[in-house]
Amino acid sequence: MRQSESLLPTLKEVPTDADIKSHQLLLRAGFIRQTASGVYSFLPLGKRVLRKVEEIVREEMEQIGANEMLMPALQPAELWRETGRWDVYGPELMRLKDRHDREFALGATHEEVITSLVRDEVKSYKKLPLTLFQIQTKFRDEKRPRFGLLRGREFVMKDAYSFHETYESLDITYNSMYQAYSNIFSRCGLNFRAVIADSGAMGGKDTHEFMALSDVGEDTIAYSDTSDYAANIEMAPVIASYTKEAVELAELQKVETADQKTMQDVADFLGHPLNKGLKTLMFKVDEKLVLVVTRGDHEVNDIKLKNLYQASIVELASEQETIDTLGAGFGSLGPVGVNGKVDVVADNAVEYVVNVSCGANENGYHYINANPGRDFEIDTYADLRFIQEGDELPEDQGIVKFARGIEVGQVFKLGDFYANKLGATFLDDRGKSNTMIMGCYGIGVSRTLASIVEQHHDESGITWPVQVAPFQVHLLTINAKKEEQKKLAEELYSSLKSLGIEVLYDDRKERAGVKFADSDLIGIPYRITVGKRADEGYVEFKLRENGEQSELHQSEIVNKIKQLLGK
Amino acid sequence: MRQSESLLPTLKEVPTDADIKSHQLLLRAGFIRQTASGVYSFLPLGKRVLRKVEEIVREEMEQIGANEMLMPALQPAELWRETGRWDVYGPELMRLKDRHDREFALGATHEEVITSLVRDEVKSYKKLPLTLFQIQTKFRDEKRPRFGLLRGREFVMKDAYSFHETYESLDITYNSMYQAYSNIFSRCGLNFRAVIADSGAMGGKDTHEFMALSDVGEDTIAYSDTSDYAANIEMAPVIASYTKEAVELAELQKVETADQKTMQDVADFLGHPLNKGLKTLMFKVDEKLVLVVTRGDHEVNDIKLKNLYQASIVELASEQETIDTLGAGFGSLGPVGVNGKVDVVADNAVEYVVNVSCGANENGYHYINANPGRDFEIDTYADLRFIQEGDELPEDQGIVKFARGIEVGQVFKLGDFYANKLGATFLDDRGKSNTMIMGCYGIGVSRTLASIVEQHHDESGITWPVQVAPFQVHLLTINAKKEEQKKLAEELYSSLKSLGIEVLYDDRKERAGVKFADSDLIGIPYRITVGKRADEGYVEFKLRENGEQSELHQSEIVNKIKQLLGK
Repeated sequence: MRQSESLLPTLKEVPTDADIKSHQLLLRAGFIRQTASGVYSFLPLGKRVLRKVEEIVREEMEQIGANEMLMPALQPAELWRETGRWDVYGPELMRLKDRHDREFALGATHEEVITSLVRDEVKSYKKLPLTLFQIQTKFRDEKRPRFGLLRGREFVMKDAYSFHETYESLDITYNSMYQAYSNIFSRCGLNFRAVIADSGAMGGKDTHEFMALSDVGEDTIAYSDTSDYAANIEMAPVIASYTKEAVELAELQKVETADQKTMQDVADFLGHPLNKGLKTLMFKVDEKLVLVVTRGDHEVNDIKLKNLYQASIVELASEQETIDTLGAGFGSLGPVGVNGKVDVVADNAVEYVVNVSCGANENGYHYINANPGRDFEIDTYADLRFIQEGDELPEDQGIVKFARGIEVGQVFKLGDFYANKLGATFLDDRGKSNTMIMGCYGIGVSRTLASIVEQHHDESGITWPVQVAPFQVHLLTINAKKEEQKKLAEELYSSLKSLGIEVLYDDRKERAGVKFADSDLIGIPYRITVGKRADEGYVEFKLRENGEQSELHQSEIVNKIKQLLGK
Repeated sequence: MRQSESLLPTLKEVPTDADIKSHQLLLRAGFIRQTASGVYSFLPLGKRVLRKVEEIVREEMEQIGANEMLMPALQPAELWRETGRWDVYGPELMRLKDRHDREFALGATHEEVITSLVRDEVKSYKKLPLTLFQIQTKFRDEKRPRFGLLRGREFVMKDAYSFHETYESLDITYNSMYQAYSNIFSRCGLNFRAVIADSGAMGGKDTHEFMALSDVGEDTIAYSDTSDYAANIEMAPVIASYTKEAVELAELQKVETADQKTMQDVADFLGHPLNKGLKTLMFKVDEKLVLVVTRGDHEVNDIKLKNLYQASIVELASEQETIDTLGAGFGSLGPVGVNGKVDVVADNAVEYVVNVSCGANENGYHYINANPGRDFEIDTYADLRFIQEGDELPEDQGIVKFARGIEVGQVFKLGDFYANKLGATFLDDRGKSNTMIMGCYGIGVSRTLASIVEQHHDESGITWPVQVAPFQVHLLTINAKKEEQKKLAEELYSSLKSLGIEVLYDDRKERAGVKFADSDLIGIPYRITVGKRADEGYVEFKLRENGEQSELHQSEIVNKIKQLLGK
């Protein structure tokens, strides 16, 4: 492509409303422009990268036998009412009425459309399993669109759906998808982790999120840099092993702690570290009151509590409820003497504490030297706390570290939620009707593009991995008015193009400095500069990523590029 | 692709709500399914054809230096208000509000978005001309969606926009586009005509519509089957040459015609054919009264009248207005004695009439033997009538025929309408600010797909041209349970695929009759059937289009296919 014939508007200044590098660089290098808040146009360079990422996704999907299709953005409200999501989805779902006042959703996701389609077309086990995917524009009316392509309101997604006879069949496709996703993000040049995530409200089972590691990510993940361990911190299982301190049990005593209420206040007042106190909170778990005990340096993870009880709603009890039940307010709760009044559950770490303090269920008083088993009973011990940076993982799995991640993909065992709601059944090999088992699998294509930029840039601009770069070669002349430079550049442009190599040719009559700056900003991996030694047939070759330069003869340069591209 | 792993639901029955062949066949052969009225899902086969057509479009666009980009579907209402189209476009434009009550249009077309983008990014003549295109889902809330993909509410379009310094530059791009469109529709296997069309209300200049000839088309075009002549009948220039009958001029006489009012009534009453009378109508052309005279067998074309006067509004005058001006009602108007009272214009054919009848501008009376020049004066002769089937074209250009056409594309010289409204200006080489000149160019991609089916089918199903077929080869076994058939089919499947040949492999355990019927319905051009002689290595090869069959050895079949595909 000749630069003079395209729209590649680069910006010298960092746009004021762009906070993160990918947003800044994609704007500055002329890949995208904002049309409305959270709504972008992809300019020619941006569109090229988008297509590269899409093509990688498409290849890997087809590789595992998924079939591409295309569903509409306009989705009848009735379908969403059948699954109950018309009311549940909230203002993120964009809605409109047609000229006959019929309601539609603008596709944020396509479970309803695909499930009703497959319900109508697939009646027999012989046609299962079936995996379908599409690459399509999606709409979600984010409350605060930001970070450019990372959190937009209109964006490109790959969504896939699989349909099965059994959970075993789902497991097989889920594992293929997991592997395909790993291939896709590897091919896109991303440093990523697949993390265990929460399956949320829709009744699903296993789910993994694929996280591109980045400081600007909105999620925090726990991982080990010496093993595969990785999880969303909201979900991360604590697999630390605790040991009991080998000291004598001291005598339980009630002490006045007056107005000391927070864990830190009480610990300071009593003169012990945080982990020598117990934190006690009362929750309402689907209307049932539950006392939850953790070590003072740990935080209760309400998702784990919810999963323990397989509950729908978990919330803190009111102070009036703690007073009515245990006779004390928030700051003075503890497990001693509670037995029978409410369920008492505790995080695994609590089983190993010795001589700790805890609330005495009497306002203004705490116990010291409390010990589990002797002074109080726990109905159930479980993993109930958030993981922490520095937690030890068992068996050489290293130490837990935290990192921020951008969710670029998710694989999800949906189970039968949608098939049940929409009546997607099939006849099995004995003629018996069964509900289909489903999986769904998403990739944020435009978000992946932005994540690549987050991970691949330097102070001068973007440094695209070659497999997703808008072009493979950037061809420049130092002085486009010099006939011998122009002639050599045109020759190279033709011969590279004839080999199927993608060349962006900066044929503009700009100063060399402008061209170099633009080239660094745009970030095409291989740069050929035709300059002073054009008359001798010599050009300069530069690798964008590491700045490595060499001078090559025109007879060598084409082979050099072919070799680098594996052609 | 293995048929057992995909979603290819064929139907035996013709769906009751599908009136035309493309709609019926695309449903029956499992290419599309309706999600809502005028809203379709493309199943795997349909999506494959869509991608083939898109790829042809993309290649031809890139060939003429157009750059692909991608604009959003969500378009801020403010942009549409700037051009005035928010109010003009009517209920066809789908509209919605976001969670902050801001109004958006769902992109029906992208003149506003692209013009505002180019306005912001292109400031100098050095960056012109510039041509950008996208292939994207569009939304138009048709009042009566019908004919499947031909008139839907959500559909795939290629839209391109060009920006220029001058009209001369626009002409060059327009001509390239015209040629690219011809290439695209030829490569898609369409029998089409590019016809001159009306540029409508938006102040444009030249425009051509590309019409796929088909009886189900909603437009009528006039064409010659012996020359390039083709035009939309609304616009078709009449280039017939008339000659004056060599008879003596008879004496003008006023005769009583009482209640005879229509042309046919008067002709019958006076005992002459229709073409021996004059039809006289009074129009209001931008509020100016104009008397329009045609031959009795011709119809006034109000678009031509409008263009003659370069007027905005053309409508028939009221009967009261004809009485006030000429003293007679509708049935008795004529050109005799009118001079000076109103403009009198006539179709070119009127200049050549001899001894004709016409209204006498006196209710109940007509003249007979009226002759132009002697009995009445015409201010302006022009091409003012609709073209008619059978009209002779000059100089060996043949005879006018009418045909129905499906509009699959349009090229349009927009001029400066949008650039003016949105302030898209540039500095020319003398530093002077000018308004950009624009062209726009659309192709209905999904409509093209349906048009191909309208032109390529027989009683058994679709007969895809190979370049847009979902697959190139359909591979079948007569009996999938026979080991030697399965083995040979698997071998051929692998070797064809390894050559990059697209194979649909019907590996289902269905009866041969079902497989053949499905294969004819789906319409893949080359069919390989592995049957009884599999053990000897022989297969049957069949061309879908003409049914030609031959038996070939497995050693020949791959080369045969390669040769047919030009590989």
